[in-house]
Amino acid sequence: MIFTHIVMDGDAIGSAAALCLAMRKEGIDAYVVTEDELAKNLSFLGKDLCIDVAEAEKMFSDGHDISVCVDCSEESRFPKRAALFNNGAVKVCIDHHKTADTICDYNYVDPEAGATAQLIYKLIKAMGTEIDKDMAVRIYAGIATDTGNFQYSNTTKETHQIVSELYDICDSFHEVSVEIYENEPFAKLKLQSEIFDGAELFAGGKAVIASVTQDMLKRCGAVMDDSEGTVSRLRALENVEVAALLRENEDGSIKASLRAKTYADVSELCASHGGGGHAKAAGFTEYGNPEKIRETLKKEIEEKIIG
Amino acid sequence: MIFTHIVMDGDAIGSAAALCLAMRKEGIDAYVVTEDELAKNLSFLGKDLCIDVAEAEKMFSDGHDISVCVDCSEESRFPKRAALFNNGAVKVCIDHHKTADTICDYNYVDPEAGATAQLIYKLIKAMGTEIDKDMAVRIYAGIATDTGNFQYSNTTKETHQIVSELYDICDSFHEVSVEIYENEPFAKLKLQSEIFDGAELFAGGKAVIASVTQDMLKRCGAVMDDSEGTVSRLRALENVEVAALLRENEDGSIKASLRAKTYADVSELCASHGGGGHAKAAGFTEYGNPEKIRETLKKEIEEKIIG
Repeated sequence: MIFTHIVMDGDAIGSAAALCLAMRKEGIDAYVVTEDELAKNLSFLGKDLCIDVAEAEKMFSDGHDISVCVDCSEESRFPKRAALFNNGAVKVCIDHHKTADTICDYNYVDPEAGATAQLIYKLIKAMGTEIDKDMAVRIYAGIATDTGNFQYSNTTKETHQIVSELYDICDSFHEVSVEIYENEPFAKLKLQSEIFDGAELFAGGKAVIASVTQDMLKRCGAVMDDSEGTVSRLRALENVEVAALLRENEDGSIKASLRAKTYADVSELCASHGGGGHAKAAGFTEYGNPEKIRETLKKEIEEKIIG
Repeated sequence: MIFTHIVMDGDAIGSAAALCLAMRKEGIDAYVVTEDELAKNLSFLGKDLCIDVAEAEKMFSDGHDISVCVDCSEESRFPKRAALFNNGAVKVCIDHHKTADTICDYNYVDPEAGATAQLIYKLIKAMGTEIDKDMAVRIYAGIATDTGNFQYSNTTKETHQIVSELYDICDSFHEVSVEIYENEPFAKLKLQSEIFDGAELFAGGKAVIASVTQDMLKRCGAVMDDSEGTVSRLRALENVEVAALLRENEDGSIKASLRAKTYADVSELCASHGGGGHAKAAGFTEYGNPEKIRETLKKEIEEKIIG
């Protein structure tokens, strides 16, 4: 049984699915066990491989031999499957995230890898299993999505080397990109258009802030997940060093997401509001008047960060 | 003297600049001769290498030895520099576009290459010139921009192979991506937000249309170039097969840009309006009432293309 983290991204499902296919090719009765739905644009990656916990327990009522967790290494990342995971006679972890502890019998963890899919590629090769087109597509999807199409700083020589080798198996990955990136819901486009319409530069153009309200979601027929990517786009503005997005949750609380481009550190300001994160990406959640929270945050970004 | 096409993109300036640096390293007194300004986000690629026609004529009043045209192979692509180009004692062309004719004494044209920068890389290696970091950055910029960050169908095994070799020279190209892509003018964000706000699905959700007017440009403080990329984003919508963008020119004419995602052919419809292009990307320009043009186009897309 192969497990990956909740809210599966391209690397999570791509890595899990490629490993599952390789195991099946070696005659192993393997499945990817999930506890949440795949995003629509990623569903082709998990096709015919995924089962839920109830199905897994029914199919393997006498227990299973191996549990593998992929692209994660903590039970909190697969909470509803933790018991099932621990039932495996042998436990294996394959991950590229930095972790404090290793929870498994065998651990293949490499934080230098741009994507877990790179580790899966090397593992399948080491297994001596011939990588076929279905596996290549899933490995590619994992690498491309987790490196921001080779733009993020986690992209290395090995990333491109592996992808160049994948082209020996599959002529073109253009169709994979179309499937993943050219499936945007209309409601998402409308929501983002409204978010950017309300975007406001401040601190001499070095910072930008925007908001998403429950009303906006209703008007656009969108969900909060549709605001994904907007804070990165705001940070990408010319001369902008700090970008902030304020999301109004259903309970009325405001979730602030802050991003820095090059030199600024947004983590301290977020920590002072009871939040956390890294220098370049941090956030906090608080209750209060949305306008007031926005004005206070603008003032603090201008005075404490931009200076 | 190195020439490239007007409205320089990343591959044009990246290729020209990398070749210029390599020639200089070999002791050749080389320059990139331009007739228009580089886009702000690409200006770092041409730094200290570009001169305009007047400067070139002054510096080389006794004539010059070699003219190289890069990423283009027709004089119409460098109209104000055609005479100067033809003054070169020897003419060389390096390009990855399909061309009918070869206009130069020496032609290195390979339509299979994802970017002209790939040809420049192979050429510099063949010259025996050691590629340094400044050249690597420019070759990378050319490849990354012309392949849509490795997503377009022109991306090949060789594309990734070359980039993996560039990592031997430069540890990370993340900063290059930030420089190129994280420099969006605020006016562009506002304009695109307004364009998408007016986007309209039709033909049962299989087609989408949007407009840009001169009034919108004024309101946003934007220029027409700021609408670049919007028609691709519209085509990327879920279930959409055909996307159309109508741009109102300064003279009141309407320029229509049509894009197809997978199976449709938009070239015939555009040809019937006196325009042209390919199956997946075509356009036309006509005069008339903007509303009427929009309604007629919608009807034609629905009836003649989506069917």
